[in-house]
Amino acid sequence: MNLQNLEKLSVAIFIFPEVEVLDFAGPFEVFSRTRLVAGVESRRSDESAPFRVFTVAKTADVVSAVGGLRVVPDYDFATAPQIDLLVVPGGFGTRSLLRDQACLDWILQVHQQATQVTSVCTGALLLAKLGLLKNKRATTHWGALDFLETLDNTIVVERQQRVVHDGIVTSAGISAGIDMSLSVVEALFSREVADETAHYMEFIRSR
Amino acid sequence: MNLQNLEKLSVAIFIFPEVEVLDFAGPFEVFSRTRLVAGVESRRSDESAPFRVFTVAKTADVVSAVGGLRVVPDYDFATAPQIDLLVVPGGFGTRSLLRDQACLDWILQVHQQATQVTSVCTGALLLAKLGLLKNKRATTHWGALDFLETLDNTIVVERQQRVVHDGIVTSAGISAGIDMSLSVVEALFSREVADETAHYMEFIRSR
Repeated sequence: MNLQNLEKLSVAIFIFPEVEVLDFAGPFEVFSRTRLVAGVESRRSDESAPFRVFTVAKTADVVSAVGGLRVVPDYDFATAPQIDLLVVPGGFGTRSLLRDQACLDWILQVHQQATQVTSVCTGALLLAKLGLLKNKRATTHWGALDFLETLDNTIVVERQQRVVHDGIVTSAGISAGIDMSLSVVEALFSREVADETAHYMEFIRSR
Repeated sequence: MNLQNLEKLSVAIFIFPEVEVLDFAGPFEVFSRTRLVAGVESRRSDESAPFRVFTVAKTADVVSAVGGLRVVPDYDFATAPQIDLLVVPGGFGTRSLLRDQACLDWILQVHQQATQVTSVCTGALLLAKLGLLKNKRATTHWGALDFLETLDNTIVVERQQRVVHDGIVTSAGISAGIDMSLSVVEALFSREVADETAHYMEFIRSR
């Protein structure tokens, strides 16, 4: 493996007021700690990291997540670089985003250029609102499964799966975002790379 | 249950440069989302929340975690309120903290007033350095088990357990901090409250 020429995929984690902490922190952890070379030592540098991970918010203001955790976004909509992989997390904040045209427009625009769009938890509601889940299988937090169906009745709502791949990758609530991210790592690289990252994180994958 | 008079326990999550993201975000999620009343609706307010969770850093500066996530601490050492429960996360940043007397002194001072000190991952190294794990059973990330032993050879290093309760509560790497936090919720309240919080987070507990 020639790591010198490893072109890193850019991963944007969308954050917004009242985003659920683990919804964005789980995927941030997985994508930023994935290495193509196994072990602890490889994690001390970015050399074998296949992803470059950053946060993006509507504006450059500090984002207050659910529970009050305060995060400084790396980019706002205007300054964000090209995005290969988008993570749309959930949280109570998604309810007001359903009426925030600037946020919806941004997600749609990223969807048109990104190779992979993913959601965690109620992030799926935003994708449904945009029509991106039309006729697709998808899931969300157990408390929002019915709401997802009302947003677009062509969606085949999967009520028993933690992660659903159907072009767009959606996942169940909160901690399922870790499984979702690992399943994307597996699809892009290999099961070995995903399992080794889970081992580094001491995370027990759900299959 | 009289929620009007529910006195909330204060939970301080210590953050520092190069803290591992999931090490602090997992416990933040668990403690800030625990409710004594089950369901999704109870999470919309703090009424039945038994914890008040905040981040504390050495200074008020933005903290850059492993992978570059930027967090604004709620308090610095000088302004932090009284602390009932302390979470000491890990990450590569712990190595320089082993020589940071101001940080070590602060942890020791909190230990003297708090009812419960906990660690995730290599946070245990800091507790060992302070002599707080003397003659105790303890654990850390699998990559640091041997190092933990060299810091204090009276520690009974548990190599197979995700969470170890022995006065101080230590846990294995990264995602094990979620199990650690849920086990503290279980010890302080009940298994029912801990399991219901795990269910809300769609997290599958390890026993």
